[in-house]
Amino acid sequence: MEFMSDHASPYFTKIEHIGIAVRSLEEAIPRYERLMGGRVYKREMVEREGVETAFLLCGPNKIELLESRGSDGPIALFLERRGEGMHHVAYAVADIRSEMHRLKQEGFQLLSDEPNPGADGKWVCFIHPRGVSGVLTELCQDRD
Amino acid sequence: MEFMSDHASPYFTKIEHIGIAVRSLEEAIPRYERLMGGRVYKREMVEREGVETAFLLCGPNKIELLESRGSDGPIALFLERRGEGMHHVAYAVADIRSEMHRLKQEGFQLLSDEPNPGADGKWVCFIHPRGVSGVLTELCQDRD
Repeated sequence: MEFMSDHASPYFTKIEHIGIAVRSLEEAIPRYERLMGGRVYKREMVEREGVETAFLLCGPNKIELLESRGSDGPIALFLERRGEGMHHVAYAVADIRSEMHRLKQEGFQLLSDEPNPGADGKWVCFIHPRGVSGVLTELCQDRD
Repeated sequence: MEFMSDHASPYFTKIEHIGIAVRSLEEAIPRYERLMGGRVYKREMVEREGVETAFLLCGPNKIELLESRGSDGPIALFLERRGEGMHHVAYAVADIRSEMHRLKQEGFQLLSDEPNPGADGKWVCFIHPRGVSGVLTELCQDRD
């Protein structure tokens, strides 16, 4: 069965990025540059999460490579449990606070009460994977 | 450090979709419709993979929910090993055969020698996760 495309999400305007947990940015960056034929346009530490990130552009979307900078942060734990792979998906939203309110009302479990500053100039909030088919889900709003 | 955005991939035009392995479409569909506020616009069997799929739109991107229709297909094995979660990422390409050629030359391991018909009107080819930081990676070209 096929519906009309006005069934698109009115709240999530695109996949802002997918986050990929890697053991070593020094290995993963040239690998992803060869895969995509593009170049990393930004590297950035996110001190609060203990990760270093590297971003590649793919049309309207981004790939965020994540390397842990400690042995007990979320990426270190993910690598230990599951190895390298997709860690989260982030959706772009226009108004993160109203989305956080809406999703709480819908029964989703947010991992913070307030938006936090994320990488690449964003306000971010994560949703617990339990209620979203095991997918760590992030909301992103431009900070400026 | 920040580079100019002409470092974007010249080959991958966007993230076409991410594929999410779920135990039950009947549970996952209303969950994702609540999450995104949109509606599933298509359900489709992919007999070759033994999966039933459901698609949601998110701006230029899609979410593909995947339920196994057998006990030994790739989604059944993934669920057994890792539980529900992100299964693959698919990139849109204009010419899948030339991309397959380019990526083989770059040393990536393709999972088929020819493009196969995939869900939602695509030609598809998968790249082995081993060379791509543990991420099962798909190329997608429109079939018409």
